[in-house]
Amino acid sequence: MRSFSLRELATVSGALVALPLAAVSCAGGSQLVEPKGPPPPPGESAVSLKAEELPAAPATVDPQSTEGMWLLNDFPSERVGKAFGFAPSQEWLDEVRLASVRLAGGCSGSIVSPNGLVMTNHHCVHHCVEQLSSSKQDYVADGFHAKAQSEEKTCPNMELNQLIEITDVTSRLASVTDGLSGESFGKAQKAEIGKIEKECAESADVRCDVVSLYHGGRYHLYKYRRFQDVRLVFAPELSAAYFGGDPDNFNFPRYVLDAAFLRIYDGGRPLETKHHFTWSENGATEDELVFVSGHPGSTSRSLTVAELELIRDVMLPARLLRLAEIRGLLTEFKSRGPEQARISKGTLFGVENAVKALQGRRAALVDRELFGAKVRAEEELRAKVAADPALREKYEGAWQAIAKAQERMRAIRVPYQQLEQGAGFWSDLFTHARQLVRAAEELPKPNEERLREYTEARRPALEQGIFSTAPIYADFEILKLTHSFTKLREELGADHPVVRKVLGRKSPKELAESLVKGTKLFDPKVRRSLYEGGKRAIDASQDPMIQLAKAVDEEARTIRRTYEDEVEAVVRKNGELIARAKFELYGTSIYPDATFTLRLSFGLVKGWEENGKKVLPFTNFAGAFERDTGSDPYALPKSWLSSKSKLNLSAPLNFVTTNDIIGGNSGSPVINRNREIVGLIFDGNIHSLGGDYAFDQLKNRAVAVHSTGIVEALTKVYGADHLVEELRGGKAQ
Amino acid sequence: MRSFSLRELATVSGALVALPLAAVSCAGGSQLVEPKGPPPPPGESAVSLKAEELPAAPATVDPQSTEGMWLLNDFPSERVGKAFGFAPSQEWLDEVRLASVRLAGGCSGSIVSPNGLVMTNHHCVHHCVEQLSSSKQDYVADGFHAKAQSEEKTCPNMELNQLIEITDVTSRLASVTDGLSGESFGKAQKAEIGKIEKECAESADVRCDVVSLYHGGRYHLYKYRRFQDVRLVFAPELSAAYFGGDPDNFNFPRYVLDAAFLRIYDGGRPLETKHHFTWSENGATEDELVFVSGHPGSTSRSLTVAELELIRDVMLPARLLRLAEIRGLLTEFKSRGPEQARISKGTLFGVENAVKALQGRRAALVDRELFGAKVRAEEELRAKVAADPALREKYEGAWQAIAKAQERMRAIRVPYQQLEQGAGFWSDLFTHARQLVRAAEELPKPNEERLREYTEARRPALEQGIFSTAPIYADFEILKLTHSFTKLREELGADHPVVRKVLGRKSPKELAESLVKGTKLFDPKVRRSLYEGGKRAIDASQDPMIQLAKAVDEEARTIRRTYEDEVEAVVRKNGELIARAKFELYGTSIYPDATFTLRLSFGLVKGWEENGKKVLPFTNFAGAFERDTGSDPYALPKSWLSSKSKLNLSAPLNFVTTNDIIGGNSGSPVINRNREIVGLIFDGNIHSLGGDYAFDQLKNRAVAVHSTGIVEALTKVYGADHLVEELRGGKAQ
Repeated sequence: MRSFSLRELATVSGALVALPLAAVSCAGGSQLVEPKGPPPPPGESAVSLKAEELPAAPATVDPQSTEGMWLLNDFPSERVGKAFGFAPSQEWLDEVRLASVRLAGGCSGSIVSPNGLVMTNHHCVHHCVEQLSSSKQDYVADGFHAKAQSEEKTCPNMELNQLIEITDVTSRLASVTDGLSGESFGKAQKAEIGKIEKECAESADVRCDVVSLYHGGRYHLYKYRRFQDVRLVFAPELSAAYFGGDPDNFNFPRYVLDAAFLRIYDGGRPLETKHHFTWSENGATEDELVFVSGHPGSTSRSLTVAELELIRDVMLPARLLRLAEIRGLLTEFKSRGPEQARISKGTLFGVENAVKALQGRRAALVDRELFGAKVRAEEELRAKVAADPALREKYEGAWQAIAKAQERMRAIRVPYQQLEQGAGFWSDLFTHARQLVRAAEELPKPNEERLREYTEARRPALEQGIFSTAPIYADFEILKLTHSFTKLREELGADHPVVRKVLGRKSPKELAESLVKGTKLFDPKVRRSLYEGGKRAIDASQDPMIQLAKAVDEEARTIRRTYEDEVEAVVRKNGELIARAKFELYGTSIYPDATFTLRLSFGLVKGWEENGKKVLPFTNFAGAFERDTGSDPYALPKSWLSSKSKLNLSAPLNFVTTNDIIGGNSGSPVINRNREIVGLIFDGNIHSLGGDYAFDQLKNRAVAVHSTGIVEALTKVYGADHLVEELRGGKAQ
Repeated sequence: MRSFSLRELATVSGALVALPLAAVSCAGGSQLVEPKGPPPPPGESAVSLKAEELPAAPATVDPQSTEGMWLLNDFPSERVGKAFGFAPSQEWLDEVRLASVRLAGGCSGSIVSPNGLVMTNHHCVHHCVEQLSSSKQDYVADGFHAKAQSEEKTCPNMELNQLIEITDVTSRLASVTDGLSGESFGKAQKAEIGKIEKECAESADVRCDVVSLYHGGRYHLYKYRRFQDVRLVFAPELSAAYFGGDPDNFNFPRYVLDAAFLRIYDGGRPLETKHHFTWSENGATEDELVFVSGHPGSTSRSLTVAELELIRDVMLPARLLRLAEIRGLLTEFKSRGPEQARISKGTLFGVENAVKALQGRRAALVDRELFGAKVRAEEELRAKVAADPALREKYEGAWQAIAKAQERMRAIRVPYQQLEQGAGFWSDLFTHARQLVRAAEELPKPNEERLREYTEARRPALEQGIFSTAPIYADFEILKLTHSFTKLREELGADHPVVRKVLGRKSPKELAESLVKGTKLFDPKVRRSLYEGGKRAIDASQDPMIQLAKAVDEEARTIRRTYEDEVEAVVRKNGELIARAKFELYGTSIYPDATFTLRLSFGLVKGWEENGKKVLPFTNFAGAFERDTGSDPYALPKSWLSSKSKLNLSAPLNFVTTNDIIGGNSGSPVINRNREIVGLIFDGNIHSLGGDYAFDQLKNRAVAVHSTGIVEALTKVYGADHLVEELRGGKAQ
């Protein structure tokens, strides 16, 4: 249900949470990943991958390079073994895969006990903690700690995915799209994907996604076990989890406890599983080889120059401008009082994080050296294609076709983002309304003909959103809607027919107030009855939000079709061609761009040089106390201040590694060769923000909480010995 | 005194108000214009221009082209005569010059009666109207109308300039800078400019500015008569002056009465003058030749590609991001209540206007065709220079030198903007404090060694600011300071020594509150006594805002010196070289980039085509009533609604012309060949925003209030017959 705000506004909080939009409209593949998945087989079956000759890397790779977000079924074990003395076996990799989980909202996590205990970042569960809070009990500020299992609280909107099987379906899809283009290509592909996913998803606790890798070079079916009963076990105070706040975000040295624990429940009881990581006795040490298993959200390293130009010149600037304005709005809204601060904080953090991350990306794209290298690489590839008559015939037109699609995107961007991607209707209530209106329209259709997010495979996610008990705050909704109606008018123009239809004679604020006051969609029971009532109930509804969603639906669907046929399908088809050309020309193993699917990276625990000065790889508790000023965001919580004498101040708190990660990797475990947890990824350094486009081993660093620091805080600050016992292999409480 | 906010944030309101910052750090010339000017000779002497062979235009000019912001002492009369049948004489041009005025805050105006009545835009006097208002009497909302002369109210911070003499000082400056570069070039030029201006400015009511034209190709001394006693005569309600608000801004068709009247006072009585425009009986008609005389703030049409790249990739995006965030802040602040809305509205409009204008500029620079043309033109010029050994020796290094200066700017931009340009200290109180601290330091120095804005020539402007009675609102100051301290920390980093010194253990908000609560600088009397007390008073002051200004002054001055020596001086010196190369290569008359100095443009009253549809050149009163929805910003004021039956609904209200204008031209008169007022410029259409870089005659349009519409409203809505009588040549009241 957060798909609109997620896509357009990246309102999920936290440093390395996936920011899906940037690529959405340019990189064909990412659309396949965005919407949520469908039905259920239980158990943890083995991976079956009929590896049809997987692609391979340019011969020029530096053997010591730690670049790469590798597929778990195509990991360069041999190379890693040669360079670093340890070559993971496929069994090792399979166990890592099964002990890793994805938070469907945009994060990663790891199973850390046989009783379904999951470790992730605080900023990955911030929204859940906020949703479980009230004006009387603020778990965000005060922290949350279930001392007994019965105190663990269900997160209203949490879905965890465990990857149980990967199947290559490239040929199957190619067989239905061969010779097609534009609308017919898109339609055929979509129908076949729908079929594949439906066949796979035999029950509600199985989620099946066909994912596009290498921008269409390969299509894999990812079969996940889906968990929707996920409960909050432990979260520290925000002031510890986000110590240093936005100013320190993406910086290092750092001093945060950005950690939280969840528990997966299965049939109302904690999940029992053999597949979990264990806890390292000592944690990460300098120069050690470590692995990060997680779900990098999206990278754009293989995009064409035309796509990168659109991102650089149009998509990123527009998004940054929008986010910056929202940042201002929320900053001032927050200062109205503690309750306003409480209900908007998570959103504000997400926005601040996105602003910083996207600025880093923009800076990378306007770096002449980096962009020049992209241009040269493409020229080289195209020259090679042009030089070979066979390649030329098959592939030469692909770049031009993608460039034309980018021009088309430039032309339709505003109405597409405003009407279909939700920029014009930033509101939980509207999102509910649109989903109800569309569910009534879509669910009666044959599965293959539905909009993707209403296919059977995605129904559990859809229903979790619609039936969610997460609170919705009227004031905040009015703020968001007033803002987005203002933007709708600004971007489409006051005389656009949809703007006239939506606003009528009202101002944005008047309309927002009347909708929020008039709608009954705050109540999950009302939503359920509309959902279950289907088209008849929707047609009869006098709810003003439902009526608004109905009123704009045709225009929204129309512009979506234009996008899908004239941009997305063109980019996919021609992206496939370019990927094939690369496979033909550059043998050996390469990794695909990130797509919020499971990847494994390797690296070393290592500092870097900044303006001629060494940045050491570790920080400790003493540093946190030195940095404390008593003022937000540098105010340590009381629990820390009063425990200071008990703490081992020289215990490591945060550290950096050379692993290649990006947004979406938040919450990823850092493990050693024994698959023991030595740390918890929560951020990248400022240089890593350019990692969307290229990896610079000299400066890019992943930032993690040290496993020793976690245990130190859990025992001495929070008295969570039972949790530490569970981590160290004792029984769950 | 608004120089900080003006430069960094463009907080002046309104569509075509000059936005000086964009060029400040890149285009050498504009720095010469920014600061305010000095002492006094009265009377209106004749123009003395020793025209040392003025430059000239490429031979390829389309004779029908209306491109150009022409100097009044170098107007292409012959060409205009041939193309349009009227060739202005020098006498005609001199009269236009003397009847035109500049609003030093960033606008233009015209003298429209022998009694010193001045016409300009409402948005150019918005701040004055706001400053004269209180929570009990809101002239912005209700309008202001002095029915008798005694009711005219003095604007606290208004300065008007009438250009009385232009002298070419190019050779004089060249003689002192010949053979110098870097710091010594800058120092020598600054000293000589100081001398020239001091010699010229013989009394407080004379303002003398040496202006750089053609990026250093020419230096002219502009001698102005300075008026600081300027009173508000008439301003309509904001809802009429800014009908359509931000959504309609930069758009057409338009329906606004963006007009206001001021009166110049001299020795406490209305100025008597022979130099004024008269009122046209019929106003502008379709296809008529019209002239716009005014002060375009800044264009970048002749910048090098390296400078344009810095603007495109760094300066504009950074500024847009900052403005967008402030827009969000102010939008939410405004919604707290009517008083917050009242005190922040003018600032918000300025920010919204800047956001839209700068977005238009950015769009132009990322337009591949436009930018490609810039690149090709520069390549051509450089090729010509390289092909001629004599030219090569003199000029070839200039582009490289400017490119290097841009790299330097990239490196120092953040501290320069934060510490010296005021981004880190957005506050009227801080601006006062810095001026007091610096005045104490600078005024005892010899004139030539002072910071430019403290030279004798600029003292009247400085003192007007310091002694101003404009109200300062504590809440608004806290908002602005909290924001800018947050940015200071964000941009420089939490560990930057200045950030540590400024914030200490306080949060941005805590610091802002303690400063605003502790300072006495709200009171003009306190400021006056500190100013008159000089260094001793400043040294003894315990005022926290004074202490803050002192604490950061050294770092601010240091980064300013770096900027001036390593960026500004390099760009000026090499800009001069490129200008000379152009003069040598491209004979005939060309116009210099805009520099907020008086220019004359010519054009036709003419619509344009938009997506295949004709946009008609006129709108009328009927259209305004059709567009009225009753909701802000489309709510006409009661005065209009109740006068509807009296109005001639088909009377023209707004119109467009092909004149080449830009921000700073707001308030310019549109005149016919008889020097009669036929309209009042207030905006450009959306296409004109790219006019910073290139003029597109097919689509760029200037937008004006029709003179007939002004009279229609004044008589039938506002009962201001006395004003209309004065306009039409009767006596002043």
